[in-house]
Amino acid sequence: MTGTKLLFAGADEYLASFQQAAGSLAEIELVPYRPQLDLEGIEYLLMWRPVAGLAAAMPDLKAIFCFGAGVERLLGSADIPPAISIVRMVEPGLTQGMSEYVLWQTLRHHRRIWELEEAQAEGRWAPHWYPAAWERPVGILGLGELGQAAGAKLAEFGFPVRGWSRHRKGNPGIESFAGLDELPAFLAGLDILICLLPLTDATRGILNADLFAQLKPGASLINAGRGSHLVEEDLLAALRSGQLLAASLDVFAREPLPGDHPFWRHNRIFMTPHNASDTDPAGGLSEIARQIARDQAGLALQHVADRVRGY
Amino acid sequence: MTGTKLLFAGADEYLASFQQAAGSLAEIELVPYRPQLDLEGIEYLLMWRPVAGLAAAMPDLKAIFCFGAGVERLLGSADIPPAISIVRMVEPGLTQGMSEYVLWQTLRHHRRIWELEEAQAEGRWAPHWYPAAWERPVGILGLGELGQAAGAKLAEFGFPVRGWSRHRKGNPGIESFAGLDELPAFLAGLDILICLLPLTDATRGILNADLFAQLKPGASLINAGRGSHLVEEDLLAALRSGQLLAASLDVFAREPLPGDHPFWRHNRIFMTPHNASDTDPAGGLSEIARQIARDQAGLALQHVADRVRGY
Repeated sequence: MTGTKLLFAGADEYLASFQQAAGSLAEIELVPYRPQLDLEGIEYLLMWRPVAGLAAAMPDLKAIFCFGAGVERLLGSADIPPAISIVRMVEPGLTQGMSEYVLWQTLRHHRRIWELEEAQAEGRWAPHWYPAAWERPVGILGLGELGQAAGAKLAEFGFPVRGWSRHRKGNPGIESFAGLDELPAFLAGLDILICLLPLTDATRGILNADLFAQLKPGASLINAGRGSHLVEEDLLAALRSGQLLAASLDVFAREPLPGDHPFWRHNRIFMTPHNASDTDPAGGLSEIARQIARDQAGLALQHVADRVRGY
Repeated sequence: MTGTKLLFAGADEYLASFQQAAGSLAEIELVPYRPQLDLEGIEYLLMWRPVAGLAAAMPDLKAIFCFGAGVERLLGSADIPPAISIVRMVEPGLTQGMSEYVLWQTLRHHRRIWELEEAQAEGRWAPHWYPAAWERPVGILGLGELGQAAGAKLAEFGFPVRGWSRHRKGNPGIESFAGLDELPAFLAGLDILICLLPLTDATRGILNADLFAQLKPGASLINAGRGSHLVEEDLLAALRSGQLLAASLDVFAREPLPGDHPFWRHNRIFMTPHNASDTDPAGGLSEIARQIARDQAGLALQHVADRVRGY
């Protein structure tokens, strides 16, 4: 018996690792996409950046599985028929990787690494104090799978953690704020702000001067949501004025970020190339196999994006 | 009623914060040490670096409370009468701070921050892979209060954690290795080695070329034990050869580290000025008050250093 066909239409650089992972998964036969491929009978598609016309050219397509948690590109693609389910990736490796990134970057800002680096560059032994974690309110914009997991880890380290989402959540150790009405109370006095929001019309440009002004003066920003959450000039201005002391950015409005962008050489911006967390091929395919089995058993797919909500 | 007198013989820079913390603690009257002070009737002393002759000049001294977890300076002081108990500091703030430092530095090495920093300095968007946490064996030399707490946190992030100590421990999620016989098995294949050992005749210089050669090639070292655990030339040689890729050092054989030391400008060594974790004044004094109450009730003091064992 062979597995269910899953068309792989991702970047070539990922193909080998996904093929290797699929090799030990009997439920799935990974079919790399190539022009002229006979698409008939293939019901499931794995991709992130839309391949123009592909979904519409698959007569039997039922669902598109996204590589990552953010599906705004797929939702924004005009040539994906509305009847096709678009599924966000939720898998342990992706969640764990984001918790790693959030803790790592939070601790950088908590310990004001730039002061340590400047002292080291000057060969200067300087006393260096930092507050206790419980004196550092940290806020997470976006309390989905990733935000909840990262918030739980931050709380374990003793940080007072707040979370902001569309609807109120009940995670232990995370003070929940909901909706635009409660955004000011969420922001007030935050030392470190972490963005893990989905990109929608409601969240585009949310990281702007008005928002920065509501944080504690000298706060830090960590953006692992999407580049378009951030108004880039407002970040640079807030760093100049000192309203923000530093930022960690994993995502950018243009990726790859052009070589002449001012972020590259800003000494208070630390950048990663959109790899805060990557889907683990084995974990991701195992999750897709689980979902396909649900679908074939007549059960509803989970983590299906809502086209009205936008994620 | 006034509290029990506790003579403060620490560095002046810490006095204000300890006085503030003592102000809200009825059990303790903090007495700053000064020459010519009448020492009669004072039974408890708080210090870290020995003040020459002080302990011997206190006719009623019963116990010395150390500021930190490492007591080798006090144990090495010839003029502290053997009958005086020397007590290691164990308090939640110190433990929590060390877990923060260990996680922060482990994640730096896990994510090979030097590659990210080099790419950023060159304005170069470069794909950057890193293994999953569960593919990164991490080892902790020293499984006291600090090592056990940090090991538990590392295990929660999915790292396979090994611990090495004099006697076998039974912490969940930490594979325990005991004694010199098991040191090679502990070291074999480690990606990241963390030193949190006490400094004794048995551990001085343990971080040397022979030990580095037993780690996975390209491993990282994190030393938050004592500077004298490390053979400095061996670290520089291991970094040159590539046997070690990078190191985080919080402690140094000479502190403050002299400005012309080669560590300062080594691009694969990240340094902090012996502040991986500091005793929280409120938490530390509260712990001392608890111990004094035990002593006055005729119960044994806890965390008393063993002069034979050396910590």
